[in-house]
Amino acid sequence: MRRYREDSSATLQSSDIGMLQRWPRLADSGVDQEFLAWLERRVRKISCSVDRIALAEMRSWHLDASTGNIKHSSGRFFTIEGLHTRTTHGTVAEWSQPIISQPEIGILGLLVRKHNGTLQCLIQAKMEPGNAKMMQLSPTVQATRSNYTRAHHGSATRYLEYFTDPQDHTVLVDVLQSEQGSWFLRKRNRNMIVLVEEDFAVDDGYRWVDVRDLRRLLRVEQLINMDTRSVLSCLPDGERGEPDTTRLLRWFTGVKSRHEVATRRVPLRGIEGWRYGPERITHDSGLYFDIVGVCVTAADREVLEWDQPMLSPRGQGVVSFVVKNFDGVAHLAVRARFQAGVLDAAELGPTVQCTPANYLQHPPRFLDYVLGASADRILFDTVLTEEGGRFYHSENRYMLIEADEDFPVALPPEFCWASVHQLEALLRHGYYVNVEARSLLACLQAVRCGA
Amino acid sequence: MRRYREDSSATLQSSDIGMLQRWPRLADSGVDQEFLAWLERRVRKISCSVDRIALAEMRSWHLDASTGNIKHSSGRFFTIEGLHTRTTHGTVAEWSQPIISQPEIGILGLLVRKHNGTLQCLIQAKMEPGNAKMMQLSPTVQATRSNYTRAHHGSATRYLEYFTDPQDHTVLVDVLQSEQGSWFLRKRNRNMIVLVEEDFAVDDGYRWVDVRDLRRLLRVEQLINMDTRSVLSCLPDGERGEPDTTRLLRWFTGVKSRHEVATRRVPLRGIEGWRYGPERITHDSGLYFDIVGVCVTAADREVLEWDQPMLSPRGQGVVSFVVKNFDGVAHLAVRARFQAGVLDAAELGPTVQCTPANYLQHPPRFLDYVLGASADRILFDTVLTEEGGRFYHSENRYMLIEADEDFPVALPPEFCWASVHQLEALLRHGYYVNVEARSLLACLQAVRCGA
Repeated sequence: MRRYREDSSATLQSSDIGMLQRWPRLADSGVDQEFLAWLERRVRKISCSVDRIALAEMRSWHLDASTGNIKHSSGRFFTIEGLHTRTTHGTVAEWSQPIISQPEIGILGLLVRKHNGTLQCLIQAKMEPGNAKMMQLSPTVQATRSNYTRAHHGSATRYLEYFTDPQDHTVLVDVLQSEQGSWFLRKRNRNMIVLVEEDFAVDDGYRWVDVRDLRRLLRVEQLINMDTRSVLSCLPDGERGEPDTTRLLRWFTGVKSRHEVATRRVPLRGIEGWRYGPERITHDSGLYFDIVGVCVTAADREVLEWDQPMLSPRGQGVVSFVVKNFDGVAHLAVRARFQAGVLDAAELGPTVQCTPANYLQHPPRFLDYVLGASADRILFDTVLTEEGGRFYHSENRYMLIEADEDFPVALPPEFCWASVHQLEALLRHGYYVNVEARSLLACLQAVRCGA
Repeated sequence: MRRYREDSSATLQSSDIGMLQRWPRLADSGVDQEFLAWLERRVRKISCSVDRIALAEMRSWHLDASTGNIKHSSGRFFTIEGLHTRTTHGTVAEWSQPIISQPEIGILGLLVRKHNGTLQCLIQAKMEPGNAKMMQLSPTVQATRSNYTRAHHGSATRYLEYFTDPQDHTVLVDVLQSEQGSWFLRKRNRNMIVLVEEDFAVDDGYRWVDVRDLRRLLRVEQLINMDTRSVLSCLPDGERGEPDTTRLLRWFTGVKSRHEVATRRVPLRGIEGWRYGPERITHDSGLYFDIVGVCVTAADREVLEWDQPMLSPRGQGVVSFVVKNFDGVAHLAVRARFQAGVLDAAELGPTVQCTPANYLQHPPRFLDYVLGASADRILFDTVLTEEGGRFYHSENRYMLIEADEDFPVALPPEFCWASVHQLEALLRHGYYVNVEARSLLACLQAVRCGA
């Protein structure tokens, strides 16, 4: 038995509560009864508990004596380290923070097929320890390299071979994309979509879902996970041909060139502004996030138990695009988002992306605008979570807001109008569109297909 | 007077030797007499000496007592640090090395105009301390941010305003591109080409040159500097429309995903395999490169004297593309080049890029092929240098080799055929085509225009 357990209310036995209590919006989602029955079966089948434990208590994780960095005893998976950032951008010239370092590239792979004239996606009901509602819908394959090369001695990753060796199948998407730039140090994952012609039976953990239904389900709070959203956003949708991105790229090169962001890893223990306790790591202000330990017990076909550190954000975030039609074409107000952990200082992010509680004195530009939007201008408004394998109970309110006359046509220097088609073209390349913007693009696909 | 001077034969008074002794191939370059007279004037006008001095003797540079890292007293310009790399790629699983860190983004800017139906480029005769022949032809503006924000208290950068504030001029190119991934830590520069309509007088340090003449001059050894080559390669040349890069990008994503490259900065003093002396830093084997100090005295209109550290490569490199026509379209055998200092582990590099002396036992793939090519298959063969502001007497033999039947059509996994048009399309984005490949693309433009 562990010495330290806290916040045990966070423990949720998957079968404790019914499906519609967990995801009330499912009732109005428009998906069919068969799907709901499947989801209910999965919820009842998977049993899971997640307990918060002290960092120092985690089995198989090692707190380096000299640096305090947190590492797995195998040397694989990921580490938690310190990062010092010095920048000419923004109001804070330098700071230190804990950051997750995961140099290996994982696969986020979605199998799709054409069925009765409809595109269908093979999704998975997946437990992840950071999900408050325990289970979410993930892509067919969602695996770090440590997972699929079986560093954890677990079972083989189903359907992996379609992505590592697509052979005669049609690869629709294959691109490296970044993840949360404030929490991950230069993390990137391989986003893939593979179209299969053959028919095969899938076991009950997986299910073929019409892409339109999957998009509908984005409106259900905390159901479609981040990796599914990221992959979906890369799926070419509608318009063909290559849009002209010249003006957009020039603006972006200009913004990036005006600022320096110099980062260096530092020992995690002793970074300024943070308290490194045996239980967890917190910021002196109580803001931003904590680094916590969890003990996970999960049972599906087999029982698994493991410990791991997680990043637990403080406060709910707001992630929003303001949308405006120019000559009948939907444009989004993108912001060049500078973050310490991205590969090249900045990526194209949403109009607003912040945790309001962190900015009580100087709210970020347009935050009040999106939070104050009248109901008729809210195209999308759903709380979704980020990567449940690394982030503990993260919540962002994803919003798509239609601009009214109060919203400026001429944007401030760090903002630029981009058409959906332009962003889709840039998604063929890595590291342009950040993960929050990709999530919102997936939500916008839902709005556009009438879901 | 300094305590330590070595290798004083490296000192070259710019006016010591005549222009055709310095650049024998100028005689056959086909440029007009007026240009030659201008160049001769510049050579005679600029007086310069570069002396090797001990690292510990450099004025305004500071060897950090605890780390041994080399920093400027202003905190600007660049630093020399240690880098440790662990990778699953290649035969060496981990190593440490000195590396140049320069987080700020500089501008490499070329002004162009249309004159009598011809495109002309405004080039500059520029002294750089690392150039064995002292002077090279550089773009209109070649300035680090420390330069152009005048951290060195020097004179203002001429023509800078065309690039920082192009206003009514036409921006043809504006893209961040990487530089030497084995010597620089995530360095990138802003490559810009701006088309001006207005006519203005230029002073004698600058000259309008037909782009065709500039390409011709690439065949003259050590005359066109790296920055000019890099910018020239980004100039859209010929074919219009967007080529399909899907297959090429998928191959590249696949190669990048198969390997991990994890780097971390470490203190420069004490890195394994290197000797840190008061004079210079060398590898135990005598291979790779040295970190040396130089004292520079330059006189043009004003006399400037400064010290700085430089990276001095050991041995001449070979940088070569193998070229083959498929259905009448020239394709290049690109190699995914993994290097510790690039932003995302690998970029698209030449078929061969190495210093042969470093690989006596296992020469890199296709090195023997390009060095053994018969004269009729050598499209281009000129020794050019890398960035003369950071690298001391670097020399690479740039070669374009036409494939014969012995060269495989089906390439090894880390190689892929790419058309020139495809690479030009990727040059609109940063960090795809590495600096050596960009140099070769500029050389290929020279071959293609018959220069």
